[in-house]
Amino acid sequence: MEASDKIAAVERYIQAFADSDMDIIRDLYADDAIVEDPVGSAPYVGMDAILGFYEQSVPGPTTLELTGTVRCAGNSAAFPFNAVVGEMRIEIIDVFEFNDAGKIQHMRAYWSM
Amino acid sequence: MEASDKIAAVERYIQAFADSDMDIIRDLYADDAIVEDPVGSAPYVGMDAILGFYEQSVPGPTTLELTGTVRCAGNSAAFPFNAVVGEMRIEIIDVFEFNDAGKIQHMRAYWSM
Repeated sequence: MEASDKIAAVERYIQAFADSDMDIIRDLYADDAIVEDPVGSAPYVGMDAILGFYEQSVPGPTTLELTGTVRCAGNSAAFPFNAVVGEMRIEIIDVFEFNDAGKIQHMRAYWSM
Repeated sequence: MEASDKIAAVERYIQAFADSDMDIIRDLYADDAIVEDPVGSAPYVGMDAILGFYEQSVPGPTTLELTGTVRCAGNSAAFPFNAVVGEMRIEIIDVFEFNDAGKIQHMRAYWSM
């Protein structure tokens, strides 16, 4: 998987929030993926749990704004951004690990209130 | 471990490069820590290997410049920065996982040339 493919996946992820498009989320993740958001909380395991989690944010007014470049390394991409909901702004770093099929296998989100 | 302790560890890490101070590196890491820098390359396992790795950069002119806030979550801290050597500037995200003693147990650096 080329760095450009990883960066494109991050851009599609951001687009999912901009367009309130759950189909993008479904397409980005492996069926047996794991999401830790934030790291340290109980993980969401598998597509159903993951879609349930994103249903809380993607269909709503939440948007993501990159605040730096996407860093690619090995099978992973890491990127800094703000999640913006109205006047609330949460500073986050996400790390995506991709599988051989180019799907996100493991997502870790680093943030706290 | 409080978020403030994790942020302080990141600040000391940056200070190690500014001061070319290997003692700070030695103090920050657990004896059996693992360093993946960059993620996808062969890891450095244990203090001797880790110090050998940092001997390539800390005693020299490399400095680190934070480009965003330190994000704390669970037992971890993630932060975006530039590694600067002369006119070369590499954009990196590091993730530190801390053990119960407050030492870095696992470090992952996300970057590529």
